[in-house]
Amino acid sequence: MKMSAIPLTKEAFASFLTDLPMPDEAAVSAARARQKTLTKPEGSLGRLESIACWFAGWRGTTRPRVDKPLCVVFAGNHGVAERGVSAFPPEVTAQMVANFRAGGAAVNQLCAAANVPLKVIPVDELRPTADMVAASAMTEKECITAIQAGFEAVGDCDMLLVGEMGIGNSTSAAALAAATFGGSATAWAGHGTGIDEPGLARKVNAIYESLARHQAGADSSFELMRRLGGKELAALMGAVLAARRKRIPVLLDGFIATAAAAVLTRDNPGALDHCLVSHLSAEPGHGRLLRALGQKPILKLGMRLGEASGAATAFPVVRAAVASHSGMASFTEAAVAGKVGLS
Amino acid sequence: MKMSAIPLTKEAFASFLTDLPMPDEAAVSAARARQKTLTKPEGSLGRLESIACWFAGWRGTTRPRVDKPLCVVFAGNHGVAERGVSAFPPEVTAQMVANFRAGGAAVNQLCAAANVPLKVIPVDELRPTADMVAASAMTEKECITAIQAGFEAVGDCDMLLVGEMGIGNSTSAAALAAATFGGSATAWAGHGTGIDEPGLARKVNAIYESLARHQAGADSSFELMRRLGGKELAALMGAVLAARRKRIPVLLDGFIATAAAAVLTRDNPGALDHCLVSHLSAEPGHGRLLRALGQKPILKLGMRLGEASGAATAFPVVRAAVASHSGMASFTEAAVAGKVGLS
Repeated sequence: MKMSAIPLTKEAFASFLTDLPMPDEAAVSAARARQKTLTKPEGSLGRLESIACWFAGWRGTTRPRVDKPLCVVFAGNHGVAERGVSAFPPEVTAQMVANFRAGGAAVNQLCAAANVPLKVIPVDELRPTADMVAASAMTEKECITAIQAGFEAVGDCDMLLVGEMGIGNSTSAAALAAATFGGSATAWAGHGTGIDEPGLARKVNAIYESLARHQAGADSSFELMRRLGGKELAALMGAVLAARRKRIPVLLDGFIATAAAAVLTRDNPGALDHCLVSHLSAEPGHGRLLRALGQKPILKLGMRLGEASGAATAFPVVRAAVASHSGMASFTEAAVAGKVGLS
Repeated sequence: MKMSAIPLTKEAFASFLTDLPMPDEAAVSAARARQKTLTKPEGSLGRLESIACWFAGWRGTTRPRVDKPLCVVFAGNHGVAERGVSAFPPEVTAQMVANFRAGGAAVNQLCAAANVPLKVIPVDELRPTADMVAASAMTEKECITAIQAGFEAVGDCDMLLVGEMGIGNSTSAAALAAATFGGSATAWAGHGTGIDEPGLARKVNAIYESLARHQAGADSSFELMRRLGGKELAALMGAVLAARRKRIPVLLDGFIATAAAAVLTRDNPGALDHCLVSHLSAEPGHGRLLRALGQKPILKLGMRLGEASGAATAFPVVRAAVASHSGMASFTEAAVAGKVGLS
């Protein structure tokens, strides 16, 4: 039965999150052993080797493949955007969805360059959340429906790339990060798409007031997302959880995508063990977030666009890691002499 | 007339090197202006934007393409390898060339994953150089013939990836770097493919003695390469120069490839302006080399294999940079609103 055939409930979400599949340690060990036999000095592919062994564990096979990547961009609108917390007006969310569909955005070119299919999901037809400063961003039904949209977005793939688009959502992401990991509104707020100083002050204030209103009630991953999140962020979080249930490795985009996924760690600290972070965003909260998660980004290129642009740019590194691991000949197969004194 | 139709001379090489084509500044300016119109916050693609504008300058067009990359691995043997300066025996060079041809090496998988054709060139049929501790590594004829092999390797492509394979060549690369930029044998020598401490001591000693013998005579890029280099390193250097003459951007691999190419800067400090460095190698001399060159690596993944593995892994980032720059819609084309107060 397809997961999506069962209507998701708040209880089912919580139970999925406490009972997560783990990597296949035998496959990890076998992959590490295989690495030692390949025609290269041991360790000489650096992080490509550890990414490949990690990937092997999640796919449960010594020589995994990554032939069917899928990139999903979730879009949503935020009530808090009406407070002037973004450099761009709220109508840009719908305009960018149209741009994604017409093939004109950065992520279209980046996915095409990396040969990754792209799916764009305007969650709840881009109907905005409530303003989190004044109320919970979503009702229970809205939040679970958005999470379910994320579940349903995870099609038949062997790696999932996730990103987001939504004017105002770096404000929401900063609030989610603060509520998940602690720290002040100022520490988590950044210039997002390029807001000016008065706008940044409005943003910090909106985060501060939302936290004051919701922090006590945000006593679970679900409640945290429902009160401070957004529909595209709930969907992204749902997709990351659905991928885990299918043992599909995930490549997270930047600050906002990482903050949304990290909400899962509120209920289960290991919830992102099947995720890699594609890059270190120029948004200052991202470095703080990665330290809190113990994650090391693949790329550091000063990107800060969102819309899965970092994930699409980093994916070829994962493909390279898996391809070299699974495709290389061993010293024996290639009749190459080993190290002096060891061959 | 094809460049390769004229037999290369030492004088022609020196004259090519003093009279290098420069980037098209009008194309760079137009590319920068184009960046400001694209449907993303200005600067939000970080280094992808500067790579794209740099690429535009070398290709002489506002919207360049990168459709025909080519990866070339030059292989060669080194007389100095007989001194036990490598963790692997000299016969591994030929064995690895066979492995490249059979498709079993890391670079085969990495090029396939990145969809880049691979050419392997065993320079002078892998006949070793002389031992640079005791004599010049190459005669004038050997060196110019190797450089010419590099010239001829640069086929019809719009980006060139260069790497090398040669047991003993990190010893040669360290000597080249020391002679080009100064600094001690110890500062430039690293563990290469994984030599033990007594081996590293032999390596440092070989570099020290070679420098003592050749430094005074190494009074030009050509003489530097001839005395302390290797055939695959001379060919790689030649390929980098030939690419410059055709305005083809180059992606350098790791420590050894960068050291070989950097010999060109002895005669012309701007000789590598058309090159990017793909990654920061775990070989400690590479960071020092990049500081001397003012180059910033694209990736930092702890790789240290050579054979163009870093170039093949980093190339998709360049492809992503060029694809996003040249393919994206503008705010006007996509009817997306600009920044609040600016639209």
